[in-house]
Amino acid sequence: MLRSSTLFVRTLRDDPADAEVPSHRLLVRAGYIRRAAPGGYTWLPLGWRVLRKVEAIVRDEMDSMGAQEVHFPAMLPRDIYELTGRWDEYGDNLFRLKDRKGADFLLGPTHEEMFTLLVKDLYSSYKDLPVSLYQIQTKYRDEARPRAGLLRGREFLMKDSYSFDIDDAGLAASYNAHRDAYERIFTRLKLPYVIVKAMSGAMGGSASEEFLAPIEVGEDTFVRCTKCDYSANTEAVTTAALSPDTASYATAAVVETPNCPTIASLVDFLNANHARSDRAWKASDTLKNVVLQLRHPDGSTEVLVVGVPGDREADIKRIEAQVSPSEVEPLDDAGFAKHPGLIRGYIGPQVLGATSATGVRYLLDPSVVTGSEWVTGANVAGSHVLHLVNGRDFTADGTIEAVEVAAGDPCPTCREPLEIARGIEIGHVFQLGRKYADTLGLSVLDQNGKQVVVTMGSYGIGVSRAVASIAEVFHDDLGLKWPRAISPVDVHIVVTGKNGDDITIAGEKLAAELEAQGLEVLIDDRNGVSPGVKFKDAELIGIPTIVVVGKSLAEGNIELRDRHAGTNEAVPIADAVQRVVALVREG
Amino acid sequence: MLRSSTLFVRTLRDDPADAEVPSHRLLVRAGYIRRAAPGGYTWLPLGWRVLRKVEAIVRDEMDSMGAQEVHFPAMLPRDIYELTGRWDEYGDNLFRLKDRKGADFLLGPTHEEMFTLLVKDLYSSYKDLPVSLYQIQTKYRDEARPRAGLLRGREFLMKDSYSFDIDDAGLAASYNAHRDAYERIFTRLKLPYVIVKAMSGAMGGSASEEFLAPIEVGEDTFVRCTKCDYSANTEAVTTAALSPDTASYATAAVVETPNCPTIASLVDFLNANHARSDRAWKASDTLKNVVLQLRHPDGSTEVLVVGVPGDREADIKRIEAQVSPSEVEPLDDAGFAKHPGLIRGYIGPQVLGATSATGVRYLLDPSVVTGSEWVTGANVAGSHVLHLVNGRDFTADGTIEAVEVAAGDPCPTCREPLEIARGIEIGHVFQLGRKYADTLGLSVLDQNGKQVVVTMGSYGIGVSRAVASIAEVFHDDLGLKWPRAISPVDVHIVVTGKNGDDITIAGEKLAAELEAQGLEVLIDDRNGVSPGVKFKDAELIGIPTIVVVGKSLAEGNIELRDRHAGTNEAVPIADAVQRVVALVREG
Repeated sequence: MLRSSTLFVRTLRDDPADAEVPSHRLLVRAGYIRRAAPGGYTWLPLGWRVLRKVEAIVRDEMDSMGAQEVHFPAMLPRDIYELTGRWDEYGDNLFRLKDRKGADFLLGPTHEEMFTLLVKDLYSSYKDLPVSLYQIQTKYRDEARPRAGLLRGREFLMKDSYSFDIDDAGLAASYNAHRDAYERIFTRLKLPYVIVKAMSGAMGGSASEEFLAPIEVGEDTFVRCTKCDYSANTEAVTTAALSPDTASYATAAVVETPNCPTIASLVDFLNANHARSDRAWKASDTLKNVVLQLRHPDGSTEVLVVGVPGDREADIKRIEAQVSPSEVEPLDDAGFAKHPGLIRGYIGPQVLGATSATGVRYLLDPSVVTGSEWVTGANVAGSHVLHLVNGRDFTADGTIEAVEVAAGDPCPTCREPLEIARGIEIGHVFQLGRKYADTLGLSVLDQNGKQVVVTMGSYGIGVSRAVASIAEVFHDDLGLKWPRAISPVDVHIVVTGKNGDDITIAGEKLAAELEAQGLEVLIDDRNGVSPGVKFKDAELIGIPTIVVVGKSLAEGNIELRDRHAGTNEAVPIADAVQRVVALVREG
Repeated sequence: MLRSSTLFVRTLRDDPADAEVPSHRLLVRAGYIRRAAPGGYTWLPLGWRVLRKVEAIVRDEMDSMGAQEVHFPAMLPRDIYELTGRWDEYGDNLFRLKDRKGADFLLGPTHEEMFTLLVKDLYSSYKDLPVSLYQIQTKYRDEARPRAGLLRGREFLMKDSYSFDIDDAGLAASYNAHRDAYERIFTRLKLPYVIVKAMSGAMGGSASEEFLAPIEVGEDTFVRCTKCDYSANTEAVTTAALSPDTASYATAAVVETPNCPTIASLVDFLNANHARSDRAWKASDTLKNVVLQLRHPDGSTEVLVVGVPGDREADIKRIEAQVSPSEVEPLDDAGFAKHPGLIRGYIGPQVLGATSATGVRYLLDPSVVTGSEWVTGANVAGSHVLHLVNGRDFTADGTIEAVEVAAGDPCPTCREPLEIARGIEIGHVFQLGRKYADTLGLSVLDQNGKQVVVTMGSYGIGVSRAVASIAEVFHDDLGLKWPRAISPVDVHIVVTGKNGDDITIAGEKLAAELEAQGLEVLIDDRNGVSPGVKFKDAELIGIPTIVVVGKSLAEGNIELRDRHAGTNEAVPIADAVQRVVALVREG
């Protein structure tokens, strides 16, 4: 039995200064976690109980699907991550350190290499496969901006698993088994989720989906079709191919466009001075060439120009997902100074491309289709060119999904409008394929005695992040409201009496009886604390069932409060045990 | 149910090349652990089950004694450890790293600072105390020589707890509560232990005891009295004070002692050329001055000379425990070159001491009592001095427990002979006192409204080390022999039939029935593996109860093998479930 009089917890009336999101605010205020380092949190007793319950559900479902639990060190030797190039690719996101002999180590952000080598170490035959292994372990990532409490930390608890199969059909089966297990896990955690297509990021590999909890404070933006079942992380959305206008265009012509620093001013100028006969010029007639710099893992940089329609913004994060592990940033003044061929504000595709005068790589958003006509910079300050046709007057080095996806964009599957929402990534399933097995030499003998490279999947759930995500979903202005399956205890008994009085004796008796029934009980047995403070604390802490043993005891009743429904019911004390046990058992 | 056909394990017939001790050898060979890094091990499914069972017993007893579980990050900010000086004091034993912004962090070797600050953060009154908090967490120490597998790793699992009390009586009670809980834990783990007095090491503080498992491969040496209940780590043994000879000594006299490079040759020379009238010269008449160098945490060094009787060795580890956190090593040639006053092989106390010609600090082992007479170097090559009396002819700067403790040394309590044994440190209980609370400002208001500094205890159990210690105690030439409470499963069923035959069907049925009774079952269901290989694997893996379903099934029997007793009994298959369940339940 937990007793408020001795429980190591202090609730706070005020929000912590650094807390941006409800889960962070409430988990700190209710005494579940405490900041210990940038992006590092200490779990207090109540929080630790919730984390361990989430962990137990994850473990149970992983075991049920036949995955086997192992546990690796967090501190890993550099040479293994050198083999796959990830020592460098991870860039600043990796915590690196040296031991007393000067040998290099890292703190594992994810363990693909270690699992691959372990299976290579133990297994050698197709008969050994398939196998799925997992661990629930502390992970480390040197996030540039740790934020939102447990939602983006630098030290966090993760379940990572890996499947090993002899062929693609096996991988697909293992992938689906994990995907199904994840659905069961999030269902048990009562965590709403959307499964969206995802980019593969620094992992390599092919098919990849994310489980997102659709919560406004999430860092991920995703689209879903208003009609069909398409959904994707915005980074992974593919553009529905548009047909170009089939009209035959006028010849390209350079015109002077003084004082047109913005797309809007350019469109106004053209409508005033170079009016079209068929319709007015629009922002979507213009082609904007965005100049970026890629920073590769080896530290070298490269200039990249991306062409997008003038009515759309370039989405740096989306572009970055496609050039990962390189990082993307706008080219700065010093960068422009090294490329005098790029006339800022007037850059046109005529001077772009690997084989062009500048030699700068040039990629187009897929919406800039071959055969389409554009107004764009003339590579001379104060001039633009009209009627420049892609494929007739210029070509690019390729395409890249670059525009910021917007609500109403056509669904790539059914062309109905997409809607946009935000979410927290709570899980990721991923067909890695043979990349790691190839690099690290994991092959087995097949039925014909031939060596075949193993194909792998990688699957993650953020365990500590799940706690915060659940808190985001289940709270109100008064505090947390835990789902039963992961509540720190089953029932919170608030006793409003004083030491030794009838109320306290009845409360203690009820607590003992509930515990005897196998329930986990927290009793607020603090002496000299007002009922009002105890009620506020109970609301903040958020145990789903609160039993108040107080003044209505005089009528033989206790109060049964449901934190989710917000209801408050008088129940005869004689029925209390049976009622509470029934509530907890029905889940 | 675990099935050998799919369990992620491979047993090895040969010992791993780097394994020095039985636990390391057998845990690797039986497929419990696998080396992943220097001093870092991966837990395979069987090993992970054992570790988690040990962890569960530790948690259960800590919870039962009223300690509350929390969990800190492993990566901690430098500034907190600067406050107590431990950032430097830990020297090379600390793993240090920087984040992407260049801020300094460490990987926690122990968490005194964090716990102290957490209690300071939440608590402010005597009413809040006592409180005991603990965590079971991965710890990091950059050991100079990681060795013996799990016995001395660089990344390992530890339970560390801390008690907080208002006064000394409270600390004593908390200390005893932990000590009692530790006794219960090791009893449940079936781990034999001796509780010995210990040094405090880098921790500061006063009373301190170690729990040692008396195992020959242990790194710790301890003494216990053959008569009374005195026992101590040899580092912590105190010397029983001896009375000096009361005879009046001759005047000190320098004699030439050519060709006497050793104590033995010196004694022989003296007996031949300067014979005593009363008895022969003995090695114990000589005073050996051992020249050491201390390396302080700030990197500075200091020369220290320690005087010990010539028939005894100086124990560097024991000396080091008393000058901790400084490290101790013999002075090297370069060091001697800087001290021309120290004539190697002929150093005498006349030139030693803070106020002497050399200014070198000089400490005596307590056995060199005041009033005792010695033969020692004359500070001239080839000469020694006879009849040099401590207190008459020289004085030192103090005493230090310096000689290697030997079997037969007198017990400091009762003067009966001590015996010596080796052990593995499996637990440590420690009255820290007010050192951390003072430094970090942890005080609370007492009953009179006065601020008082809190007094603390610190208590550790090596959880992963306990697994190895148990393996050291419970094994034979054939393999491991787990105590029931932490065996990876309750029963190992070896089926010697082929897929689909009667033996296999009976084995599977028995396994299902045992599982239905709540037992954890491993069934060796491998097809095409010989009975001999299966038996060898079962012996190596070491589940205490092995059931063989094999050829004696024809007579209606199974074989019940007891791995501890080494017995093998035919049991009617009809009685098998009941017999095995009874065995497991009786523990």
